[in-house]
Amino acid sequence: MAGNFKIRLLITALLLLLQQGITAQGREVNLGRFLKHSKDATTAVAEALAYCKKMKSTKLIIPRGVYEFWPDRATEQYLFVSNNDGGLRRITFLLEGFRNFEISGNGSQFIFHGFVSPFVLKDCSNVRIHSLSIDWARTFHSEAKILKVDEAGMELAVSAAYPYKIVNHRLVFCDKENVIYPYNGLLEFDALKRETAYMAQDYWMNSDLPAKEIKPGYIKIFYEGLRGTPGNILTFTAAGRTSSAIVISDSRKIIVDTVILFHCGGMGVIAQRSEDIIVRRVKVTPAKGRVVSITADATHFVNCKGHITLSDCVFENQLDDATNIHGIYVRVEKKIAPSSVLLALKHPQQFGFDFIKPGVRMELVHSNSLLRYSTDEVKSVHRINSQYTIVEFKNALPDLLKAGDVAADMDVSPDVLITNCTIRANRARGILLGSRGKTIIKNNLFHNAGAAILFEGDGRHWYEQAGVRNVLIEGNIFENCNYGVWGNAVIQVGPGIDAASRKISFYNKGITIQNNIFKIFDSRIVNAYAVDKFIFRNNKIFKTTAYPPAFSGAERFKVTDCENVIIDPGTATDYNCTDR
Amino acid sequence: MAGNFKIRLLITALLLLLQQGITAQGREVNLGRFLKHSKDATTAVAEALAYCKKMKSTKLIIPRGVYEFWPDRATEQYLFVSNNDGGLRRITFLLEGFRNFEISGNGSQFIFHGFVSPFVLKDCSNVRIHSLSIDWARTFHSEAKILKVDEAGMELAVSAAYPYKIVNHRLVFCDKENVIYPYNGLLEFDALKRETAYMAQDYWMNSDLPAKEIKPGYIKIFYEGLRGTPGNILTFTAAGRTSSAIVISDSRKIIVDTVILFHCGGMGVIAQRSEDIIVRRVKVTPAKGRVVSITADATHFVNCKGHITLSDCVFENQLDDATNIHGIYVRVEKKIAPSSVLLALKHPQQFGFDFIKPGVRMELVHSNSLLRYSTDEVKSVHRINSQYTIVEFKNALPDLLKAGDVAADMDVSPDVLITNCTIRANRARGILLGSRGKTIIKNNLFHNAGAAILFEGDGRHWYEQAGVRNVLIEGNIFENCNYGVWGNAVIQVGPGIDAASRKISFYNKGITIQNNIFKIFDSRIVNAYAVDKFIFRNNKIFKTTAYPPAFSGAERFKVTDCENVIIDPGTATDYNCTDR
Repeated sequence: MAGNFKIRLLITALLLLLQQGITAQGREVNLGRFLKHSKDATTAVAEALAYCKKMKSTKLIIPRGVYEFWPDRATEQYLFVSNNDGGLRRITFLLEGFRNFEISGNGSQFIFHGFVSPFVLKDCSNVRIHSLSIDWARTFHSEAKILKVDEAGMELAVSAAYPYKIVNHRLVFCDKENVIYPYNGLLEFDALKRETAYMAQDYWMNSDLPAKEIKPGYIKIFYEGLRGTPGNILTFTAAGRTSSAIVISDSRKIIVDTVILFHCGGMGVIAQRSEDIIVRRVKVTPAKGRVVSITADATHFVNCKGHITLSDCVFENQLDDATNIHGIYVRVEKKIAPSSVLLALKHPQQFGFDFIKPGVRMELVHSNSLLRYSTDEVKSVHRINSQYTIVEFKNALPDLLKAGDVAADMDVSPDVLITNCTIRANRARGILLGSRGKTIIKNNLFHNAGAAILFEGDGRHWYEQAGVRNVLIEGNIFENCNYGVWGNAVIQVGPGIDAASRKISFYNKGITIQNNIFKIFDSRIVNAYAVDKFIFRNNKIFKTTAYPPAFSGAERFKVTDCENVIIDPGTATDYNCTDR
Repeated sequence: MAGNFKIRLLITALLLLLQQGITAQGREVNLGRFLKHSKDATTAVAEALAYCKKMKSTKLIIPRGVYEFWPDRATEQYLFVSNNDGGLRRITFLLEGFRNFEISGNGSQFIFHGFVSPFVLKDCSNVRIHSLSIDWARTFHSEAKILKVDEAGMELAVSAAYPYKIVNHRLVFCDKENVIYPYNGLLEFDALKRETAYMAQDYWMNSDLPAKEIKPGYIKIFYEGLRGTPGNILTFTAAGRTSSAIVISDSRKIIVDTVILFHCGGMGVIAQRSEDIIVRRVKVTPAKGRVVSITADATHFVNCKGHITLSDCVFENQLDDATNIHGIYVRVEKKIAPSSVLLALKHPQQFGFDFIKPGVRMELVHSNSLLRYSTDEVKSVHRINSQYTIVEFKNALPDLLKAGDVAADMDVSPDVLITNCTIRANRARGILLGSRGKTIIKNNLFHNAGAAILFEGDGRHWYEQAGVRNVLIEGNIFENCNYGVWGNAVIQVGPGIDAASRKISFYNKGITIQNNIFKIFDSRIVNAYAVDKFIFRNNKIFKTTAYPPAFSGAERFKVTDCENVIIDPGTATDYNCTDR
């Protein structure tokens, strides 16, 4: 009897534990425990995460299933996310201060509705999110089939997936709950190739387009000079970057693994002021016959450190670059004391970005040449508002300092590895490289409308600190890039340096491009200036007829104002075509 | 020598004190000390206020002068202000946690530029702001002279005070720095009477109007059916309430005294969750030949307590009511536990309003009848986001509770005194009375386009809790009110109660109107329903020909579904005209 009692007690205890969704280890929590009979799983997630945090759980297990999330019951915070729009955001999975934690989706499908941010991580360490997919019931962008084009505009067929209404003779996109989805641009996609149409350009606008309905689902929009090919898809690009899928702020050791991002209203993974980020087996791809996946960059890294790894990913059909890794330049407004300077963030999507802390070293840079002329340690930081900050340095400011110069954290130089990724069919460029750490781009496939790889950086327009030091581009296939308007070569180095300064300012340094395959339909492979040590060797170049060669007169290797350049296009046998 | 030394020491000490801008009492601070050679006095104000707070000063003295303020260097906070638009705001005078403090403007003129909030008081007690004027270099609204009207639209002359540009065939208002000033409505003002034109209506819009420029300063706007009289002024109303002049939150014993508000982009004085507020000798009036003063209500009080006094004020030409005193109804979404309910703020300009605290009594009300069916004390409050809150009560929720009901703090019933005020020529109504405290409206002059006094409250549209208990309206002059579209009588009682419930729900109670003078150009003096105890006696009524009588067939006293009504129009000698 005594033994029997003990067994019964054990079973009871185990049942209790199971009932509470806690495994034998006592550290894993099952979302199932928190799910109620609600269509909206938001509250269950919030409660489960609160419980996990309280109990210092190691894992939230999400039973395989389809989950829907609305913004209504979601947690709210004002978010300043670099290269996104600042705003009061509803957040489904808000992880603040989580340590050694894992969210396992078990292949679940997450369907979001409206203006909501799926994942926001702040001050987290050693967190892994994996095995789930993200889509939206109604996308932030809209798509329509081009029926007819004339001088005044276009006739379009709009499917029921993109509800719209004509208000005061203007086209407004909405959803079934009458939430409005603002658009600010038009871009044509090739319906067969399912990529931006050959040499399609962006059309921007400030307000809703004049339009009329021909019959339900058929509209005419009015926009003088708008071009497009009947049968292709016209996309209405989302006006705001409000709802990026995974936002990582001030965190370290974060892994996003085996995640499919069918859609979001912003970026796929955006990490800021974080270190050691791995994005692995992440697929950004359109769903349900759409030509657009997500509405901005697939990934983006700002002021990050440590190691950034993108491996075994697919980034396709998003409306901006596959990645962009850079720092933030702040503009020198004026010297207000011998060692204090008023600095301003200038790009609205950088407003509120916490760009510096006491004890950190900053560089001072002339914005016309991007030449660094001083470095010093920051003694104190007084943030006035989201735009202006007073920074006091340890030492007196140099005499060279003048309004219009820029300053940046000089120690945000993560090592970067991008490997085994497929980067294709998106708007704009493939990848933008701006880290001063060791950067390896290996065994990827690029097929991008713009440059496959762009080295940029400037202190007057985007205010993105860049300037690489050590880049190896090896074993990649560049397949018919530059079929669009966003670049001038497959590999482009084009920092924002005045022509007069390009001979003295080698902003990007140490770029080696070797053992790659370039399939090209026109001549433009490299366009670079102001680089010190640029090596192009042992690459194979194949000429194709995939697209009409738009720039047939252009140089294959346009390299100016560079030092220590080796351009070795390889042996003749590597060519199966003549160079134009 | 010793005496001489002592005197020299004393003089030195005095000079030091004076140099620091501190008077002999050591508690008064002069702004002059912080002013530098900057056009923008914002930083000086921020530094002076920080110093005052640190030193526990009693007074900030602003030397008489003209001060300009830009948003650039202003402090920033996300503000949820009731009946305003929530947002990240730049604030010039941010007073947080000030006690026993005074800001004396000495008749200074404050000129603001762009999207900035002049005064925000949070958690303050015994603070007085006085002797200053507020205007903007470029107003949030725009004005234009009507030249010609046809079926398609209007030709307008726009003065240099309202910079504009035509962008993509649309009219955009801006300033010299190219900041955009969005508009969302049109309203005609009479150029001679300098008030909203007779029976002028609001025209609303979602986006910029189609327009063309005829020549610089002359434009044609296109809006089918838009009416207006050449020679009159068409005003473009500001789209947002972003920049109210004086915001008072969670404070007590606040006096705004001898202040002229020529302009702001929102309300003049808005107080929320505050008690004992005096607005005295405050003049809201247009400057520089404008027909519009400020772009929303002159004053507004939400969930306030104690005493509210408006005395010796002028509220004219603002684009909304002179005052509105009310509480906030939150909608019952659903019962989530025996004593817990999910509540939602429904009006976007109420989002984020902190409407309840533990320990406070709430009432539950049916929104169709506004009948209270339960009251209970709040045990706990869990705010999910700016829209949703879970409230737990001490006792179980009543069975009557259903989704769509509303709840409100039941103890926000300030006593109200409005006296010796001139309230005229504004858009909409004179005053909206919704406090359950003792309310006295005495010796004022009303000349309003809509109802002079409105008793409203509803739980389905504006969600404003009202329902007076004890109102005395005495000694006022009502001069030719109701020349516009915003009301149906000089005194209007029109709560949001379904017709079927008006016989059982006496939402407003105890309204006595006596010893007033009514000058009327048509018949409509009182329109009221669902009132218990309505007394109209000993008033003098004079018939005028100030405007064409638009509703000559209407009843003078339309009083339905009321109890305990006395309508005593006075002796025949009081009339100098025949009642229509």
